Amino acid sequence: MADKNDLAKGLKMRKKLTGKRFSKGGPTALAELAPDLDEMLNEVIFGRVWTRPGLELKMRSAITIAALTAMQRLPQLKGHIANGLNAGLSKKEITEILIHMAFYAGVPTAVNAFQLAKEVFQEEGV
Amino acid sequence: MADKNDLAKGLKMRKKLTGKRFSKGGPTALAELAPDLDEMLNEVIFGRVWTRPGLELKMRSAITIAALTAMQRLPQLKGHIANGLNAGLSKKEITEILIHMAFYAGVPTAVNAFQLAKEVFQEEGV
Amino acid sequence: MADKNDLAKGLKMRKKLTGKRFSKGGPTALAELAPDLDEMLNEVIFGRVWTRPGLELKMRSAITIAALTAMQRLPQLKGHIANGLNAGLSKKEITEILIHMAFYAGVPTAVNAFQLAKEVFQEEGV
Amino acid sequence: MADKNDLAKGLKMRKKLTGKRFSKGGPTALAELAPDLDEMLNEVIFGRVWTRPGLELKMRSAITIAALTAMQRLPQLKGHIANGLNAGLSKKEITEILIHMAFYAGVPTAVNAFQLAKEVFQEEGV
Amino acid sequence: MADKNDLAKGLKMRKKLTGKRFSKGGPTALAELAPDLDEMLNEVIFGRVWTRPGLELKMRSAITIAALTAMQRLPQLKGHIANGLNAGLSKKEITEILIHMAFYAGVPTAVNAFQLAKEVFQEEGV
Amino acid sequence: MADKNDLAKGLKMRKKLTGKRFSKGGPTALAELAPDLDEMLNEVIFGRVWTRPGLELKMRSAITIAALTAMQRLPQLKGHIANGLNAGLSKKEITEILIHMAFYAGVPTAVNAFQLAKEVFQEEGV
Repeated sequence: MADKNDLAKGLKMRKKLTGKRFSKGGPTALAELAPDLDEMLNEVIFGRVWTRPGLELKMRSAITIAALTAMQRLPQLKGHIANGLNAGLSKKEITEILIHMAFYAGVPTAVNAFQLAKEVFQEEGV
Repeated sequence: MADKNDLAKGLKMRKKLTGKRFSKGGPTALAELAPDLDEMLNEVIFGRVWTRPGLELKMRSAITIAALTAMQRLPQLKGHIANGLNAGLSKKEITEILIHMAFYAGVPTAVNAFQLAKEVFQEEGV
Repeated sequence: MADKNDLAKGLKMRKKLTGKRFSKGGPTALAELAPDLDEMLNEVIFGRVWTRPGLELKMRSAITIAALTAMQRLPQLKGHIANGLNAGLSKKEITEILIHMAFYAGVPTAVNAFQLAKEVFQEEGV
Repeated sequence: MADKNDLAKGLKMRKKLTGKRFSKGGPTALAELAPDLDEMLNEVIFGRVWTRPGLELKMRSAITIAALTAMQRLPQLKGHIANGLNAGLSKKEITEILIHMAFYAGVPTAVNAFQLAKEVFQEEGV
Repeated sequence: MADKNDLAKGLKMRKKLTGKRFSKGGPTALAELAPDLDEMLNEVIFGRVWTRPGLELKMRSAITIAALTAMQRLPQLKGHIANGLNAGLSKKEITEILIHMAFYAGVPTAVNAFQLAKEVFQEEGV
Repeated sequence: MADKNDLAKGLKMRKKLTGKRFSKGGPTALAELAPDLDEMLNEVIFGRVWTRPGLELKMRSAITIAALTAMQRLPQLKGHIANGLNAGLSKKEITEILIHMAFYAGVPTAVNAFQLAKEVFQEEGV
């Protein structure tokens, strides 16, 4: 059931995952063109899904990285690789996730993800 | 580097994951038409990838389920949901993985996975 | 913003779209394994998205059919072809949507959708 | 049946959809490497498909945007968002199509489309 | 350019590829719901594309099998594996195509294709 | 079965396919982050798969191009279009492969591939 605290919980979770990259939704195309969807996503996805008990935060991060790799949603994958470091995944674990993906989603699919991971690891200094 | 023990390690891992569903490759279309690929997969994927240190077994299982859901490879997804129970994922954790996928890969994508999960949970009696 | 009436609005919309196929969520795998996601979907997707002003209902139905065809989520596509008839799309319009898809998503993709459309049109007697 | 006027009809439709962005096929890689496919597409897709009666032009545009979003064919999506404005879709309707897609094709899929929509709306001054 | 002989050429090519499985379009959902698309496909795809010089027929068949495997359009893949035997591909070559796909499109993707290939090879007695 | 010469065979094949673009794995993100996967790919994919008898080298190249087009793995597609010229495919054959794909994977999918082919043909001076 929707709860009036979902939005606040979602923003807190989003801040935790994105760390210093967090910005309160200001400049994205989504926030500009569809502010109510942007809010709905903060409320529903970050507030009601990512905060659910029953699955460790680093596990949620790992499956998000796996799915975004498989679907090749590359800008989001880059963001969630960086989020993964804040969610408790090590550089080593993220690398292992992408190695594993090479065989389930195909080698080219994984190679593109490694390119982004390299960029993130450099930007984050890990 | 390839190691002459990879195939044995792979068959052991495959047996661990598939438990009572394990069969030594006999009847599948892959084993029949391309026995060397079937062996290569046992050796490389189960022997050299699934056995890698650096990522917990249940985490490997979770990301496999996430990727197969995102790509909708349904027969393989069904098998890996069952494998997940042997890899240490609880019914609750598998359910949470699929809930999470609804928002990253779309609701219809997750709904098809829930159908298979229901079948597996009934077959495995969990 | 979430509204306490969203769930009721969603169930009303879902009933309108599914007509005589409507059932209050009882038997699906989703409702059984993840009742809170099932409720969230009724509340968010049917209550807060399908009911939005700014896009005619039959247009929402048309784009849902197009996307499900492109992604080949076939069980959901079948349901939404049937929903389309309740949302104001004619058999002719649905057929035209699928013809159009043949060129944007590839012929095989459209051919599978025509198979489902044929089944729906027979079941619905149109 | 093929008709000798299909190519002319196709070029007229393409011009209508692309407006001031129209160029008679000159510089694209497709026109250069495969001029007969380029002509075939003008003739078949724009001349024989987009001109079919039975589905309003703005509806054809909407389903094209939905399918290209779902498949993430981003350069073509950008072009067809711009075409949509010429086909009778408002900025508001295009935004609603993309909001709707977030739930059927996943949030990351829609976020990438919003980025392109923002660019188009700026370029077209709407 | 469209030619009045394209439809006849297309039906001849389709007959060559499908051999004893050929039927003149009668019972398919596509032919029933959208007879003009069905005719357009015979005319354009089989008459104007498959008949193009510049690529050996067995090569066209091989790339069709590869693409349908990668996209997992399974009913069409099954048909085109059978067509491949009529286009000059051997059982061995088709098997090699699917082995190759395991690494480019992921193992699960290839495994589903092997299942269909096994069925075709049994039905065709090769 | 794995063979200690697989890695050497793989590097030789990779050199043949990539010609003057060959570099011994040094600078890629994959080689940097996951050197053992990079070696495994050289050993398994280039050493044990591309070298298999039973399918002509130019046919392996053609199906790789087709699959990468269908899946839109664009950086890899660009590389394999260039590799195709070294594997014995002519510019004309590669163009025909992409024309064929327009109908099986959708026109937008092929259009993106033509863009890359144009770049490769210019870079390679063919």
